Amino acid sequence: VNVGGRAYRTIWLAGDGRTVEIIDQTRLPHEFATVTLRSVDDVVHAIRSMQVRGAPLIGVTAAHGVCLALAANDSDEVLSEACGALLGARPTAVNLRWALERMRVALAEVSPGDRVAMAYETAAKIADEDVASCKAIGKHGAELFGSLAEDKETGNVAEPLNILTHCNAGWLATVDYGTALAPVYTAFDAGLAVHVWVDETRPCNQGASLTAWELGQHGVPHTVIADNAGGHLMQHGRVDVCVTGSDRTTGTGDVCNKIGT
Amino acid sequence: VNVGGRAYRTIWLAGDGRTVEIIDQTRLPHEFATVTLRSVDDVVHAIRSMQVRGAPLIGVTAAHGVCLALAANDSDEVLSEACGALLGARPTAVNLRWALERMRVALAEVSPGDRVAMAYETAAKIADEDVASCKAIGKHGAELFGSLAEDKETGNVAEPLNILTHCNAGWLATVDYGTALAPVYTAFDAGLAVHVWVDETRPCNQGASLTAWELGQHGVPHTVIADNAGGHLMQHGRVDVCVTGSDRTTGTGDVCNKIGT
Repeated sequence: VNVGGRAYRTIWLAGDGRTVEIIDQTRLPHEFATVTLRSVDDVVHAIRSMQVRGAPLIGVTAAHGVCLALAANDSDEVLSEACGALLGARPTAVNLRWALERMRVALAEVSPGDRVAMAYETAAKIADEDVASCKAIGKHGAELFGSLAEDKETGNVAEPLNILTHCNAGWLATVDYGTALAPVYTAFDAGLAVHVWVDETRPCNQGASLTAWELGQHGVPHTVIADNAGGHLMQHGRVDVCVTGSDRTTGTGDVCNKIGT
Repeated sequence: VNVGGRAYRTIWLAGDGRTVEIIDQTRLPHEFATVTLRSVDDVVHAIRSMQVRGAPLIGVTAAHGVCLALAANDSDEVLSEACGALLGARPTAVNLRWALERMRVALAEVSPGDRVAMAYETAAKIADEDVASCKAIGKHGAELFGSLAEDKETGNVAEPLNILTHCNAGWLATVDYGTALAPVYTAFDAGLAVHVWVDETRPCNQGASLTAWELGQHGVPHTVIADNAGGHLMQHGRVDVCVTGSDRTTGTGDVCNKIGT
C-alpha cells in the first residue's frame, strides 16, 4: 500500500539486517513516524503499547522479537524467556502464539550456532506468507466486488460500489494489503469504482484514525461515519457490501469480532 | 430533577422578575454554570450556540426572548422583529415555531400597554404546561416500567430493570423531568430498581455529556456505552426496554429521531 506515493510494508528489516523498523500506529493519523526495534524488550513494548496492532502484524513483530533476543544471546534460556515475555505482551492475539510456536519448532531443528540465521529466515517467511495470504484474499474478494458492481450497473445505478467496513482490518493490521481491506485495494488498483464507508469504531476510533488514514494515503475514496449511521445507510440502499475482520471464525461459520461488527 | 442535591428547572425567572436564567449546556458535564439572558439577542445566541437545546426547552426559552424584547420596547415592530430573529435561531425545532405562534396569538388579544405582563404570563404558562406534560409522560411510562419489572421478578431475575436510551431526551431537553427520561425519574423516585444504558451518541456525545450527567446528579444508576454495543446487549438479554425521544411522530406511528435511534 502507498504512503506519500511510495509502497510500504508495515514492518521491515533495517539496513543493518538485524534491527526492525515499524510504524508507530499510536501516532496516526496525525504523524507518520517509524520506530526502530533493537531488542526483545523494544518488541514487547511495541506490542503492549499498541504501536503495532492487528493479529497478523503482531505475530510477525513477535517473530522478530525472537530474532533480536537470539542475536544478543542464542542460549536456550534466552529463547525461552523471550518467548514467555512476548506471549504475555498481548495474550488474546492468536497469531502471536502461533508465530512463536512456529519459531520454536523451526529453531528446534538447528544447532545453537545456526539459530540466529534460522530465526531471521523463519521470521521473513512468516512475513512473506502473510503478504501472500492477504494478496489471495484480495484477489478472491475483488472478484466478488466485480460481480456486485456488474449487478449494480445492470440495474443502471451510476454510483461506485459502496463498501462498509468496521474497525481496521487493513494494511496496518497486517504486513501488507490487509485482510478485509485487501479486496478494496485490489479492486481499486484494477480500476473498479469503489467508495468505502468507514465506521468511526468507538470507543478506540480505529476506523477514523487508521482505516481512513490508510485508504486516504492510497487514494481510495471513503467517508468516515458514526457507527450508529450504518443501519440508516443500509435501509436506504447505500451499502452494497460489508467486509470486516474476524477475531475468530468457527467451523460452523459463526464469527466473533470487534463490538459493533 | 436534583443537581447537587437541590431541585432545579432548566430555565427560571431571575430575582428581578424580568431576566431569565439558564444552564450553559455547552459546558456540561465539566462545569455546571448558569447564564443570565438580558435581551432577545442573548436568547438568540443561547439557542444558536446550543447553550439551550432540546425542542421543549428551546420553545420556552424563545417565549422568554419575546418577553425580554417587549420589556425593552413593546411596539409592533419590535415584536415582529423579535419573532423573526428567534425563529431563525434554530429553524428545525418544531416547538420554537409553536411557542412563538402561541405568544403572538396571546399578545394579539391585549392592548399594547398590557403586552409585557401578558408575555411573561404566557411564557410562564408554556413552561408550566411543559412540566405538566413531562410529568404525565413520567407517570404513564413508570407504570409500564413497573409491569416490566414484575415480569422480570416472576422470571426470577435478580437484576434492576435495564433501560436503554439514546441521545438526550431528559431533564436538560425540557423544563423539568424530560420526555424519554421522565419515566426513569418517576420510577426511580418511587423506589423501582432501575439501571440505564446510556448510548454515548456520536457524533455530538449528548448521551455521554448530558444524559449521563443528569442521571448521575439525580443518583440514577447508569452506564455509558459505545453506540455500537446496543445490539450486543439486546442479544444477551441485558436490555428490558428502550426509550428515546422523537423529533417527529407521524399519525401512522412512524418516528424520526437522532441517527442511531
